Amino acid sequence: MDAIEARIQDSFAKQSLMKTFGAEVVSVAEGEVVLKSPILPLALQHTGHGHAALSFALGDTAAGFSALTVMPEGAEVVTAEIKINLLAPAAGDYLIARGHVIKPGRRLVVVGATVTAFDGDRQRDVAVLQGSMMAV
Amino acid sequence: MDAIEARIQDSFAKQSLMKTFGAEVVSVAEGEVVLKSPILPLALQHTGHGHAALSFALGDTAAGFSALTVMPEGAEVVTAEIKINLLAPAAGDYLIARGHVIKPGRRLVVVGATVTAFDGDRQRDVAVLQGSMMAV
Amino acid sequence: MDAIEARIQDSFAKQSLMKTFGAEVVSVAEGEVVLKSPILPLALQHTGHGHAALSFALGDTAAGFSALTVMPEGAEVVTAEIKINLLAPAAGDYLIARGHVIKPGRRLVVVGATVTAFDGDRQRDVAVLQGSMMAV
Amino acid sequence: MDAIEARIQDSFAKQSLMKTFGAEVVSVAEGEVVLKSPILPLALQHTGHGHAALSFALGDTAAGFSALTVMPEGAEVVTAEIKINLLAPAAGDYLIARGHVIKPGRRLVVVGATVTAFDGDRQRDVAVLQGSMMAV
Repeated sequence: MDAIEARIQDSFAKQSLMKTFGAEVVSVAEGEVVLKSPILPLALQHTGHGHAALSFALGDTAAGFSALTVMPEGAEVVTAEIKINLLAPAAGDYLIARGHVIKPGRRLVVVGATVTAFDGDRQRDVAVLQGSMMAV
Repeated sequence: MDAIEARIQDSFAKQSLMKTFGAEVVSVAEGEVVLKSPILPLALQHTGHGHAALSFALGDTAAGFSALTVMPEGAEVVTAEIKINLLAPAAGDYLIARGHVIKPGRRLVVVGATVTAFDGDRQRDVAVLQGSMMAV
Repeated sequence: MDAIEARIQDSFAKQSLMKTFGAEVVSVAEGEVVLKSPILPLALQHTGHGHAALSFALGDTAAGFSALTVMPEGAEVVTAEIKINLLAPAAGDYLIARGHVIKPGRRLVVVGATVTAFDGDRQRDVAVLQGSMMAV
Repeated sequence: MDAIEARIQDSFAKQSLMKTFGAEVVSVAEGEVVLKSPILPLALQHTGHGHAALSFALGDTAAGFSALTVMPEGAEVVTAEIKINLLAPAAGDYLIARGHVIKPGRRLVVVGATVTAFDGDRQRDVAVLQGSMMAV
């Protein structure tokens, strides 16, 4: 496991919310991080689908980690702001969130993420996010 | 308990994520709904503070409920899109989320929310949200 | 004219787009700046109303100036990101944009703005904005 | 010129702001529309670069047109909400705005846009937008 992935795994392990959701890190590359999560019964909204905040949590975290891959070692990032457009109900076997860097920067990293639901052999995007991560 | 509050409590009870976070409905008025939540050990981010997605969940849900108070009976709303600016770490005894209607509409209701952390006798805003709720 | 207002007027004078739109500074206070603009025939969208970008320009600029009022002397700000929700067509005699500071900061100032159309003795909000201004 | 492109050109011709900025339609395809614009002396901000509202206007309009390409004939769209992250100063010979459909829908079309500055043989992205267009 290389240095970048070790930093992501370390940061991920500190996020109790990710454990609560049953999420895991699927892959780490420079500028792109992929997470996977079930849609647990504890994370639903009133429609019976995954809560908007579940899709948000996964997209935001994947995006934040993607920013971390382009920061100097030892840096940490927090979300300055992020916006989510919901595209479809979060339903199916599991969710995949892909976070990516749109524009690196010393103080602010502009990021995006897409959250996709997988159901058997079908998949569809359930949310897209665009935001900025701040070095702290 | 009047009709609007009954609808909110009913919708709230269906959101397992709110129960997971230990959140409760504090007050319901036309165009404004207030939620309260602890910052549970299961909802943290890597910095040890409440996860951005916790503030998002509370603000988004309070805002969605505020939209519901101006919709016709029997209507349901889901989040079309919402944006959050994080202002300070989510730390303290508990969080209060106030959701309010900015502009009612038949199809889209524009909403806002503020999430505030209370710590002893101190309080500070930790997030502001602006978004739109869609009737479904 | 005090120092803050002089800085705003100086910055405003450098923005040729504000002159193109016929906009002017109405008032400057710490944390709040108000602009006024006609809806000129050169600034319309396909519906015959003021273009979404006109409301954006006024709201963004008012918000940016409000951030400038809380920055150290000599600082300059640019928009890092901003989001606009359109509430109603921009029509009437003129527009008023009120920008305000939500949270000051050394590097990022979180801001909001409301754009209101005035038509005879009627007025209605046409847009709300939420964003962040970055010191440069 | 096919039907879709004719509708775009017709809508574009009604937008006086696009003419003010000297913008033109470069290409129209289903789900993607490209605009081009100079950075005229009348469209600057205080830093001497293109105003954030110029990038916004081009990105928003390109995104709105991309939504129009997936709507039934006779439909019209207006911006419900849109968010812009500014990536770099808008400087150079001209700007290209590419709007695209992220998710079609009967009532709401989720869209994105990228605005790129071209300067001699160099190019760089100056803004990204994510928003929703509403059928009216």
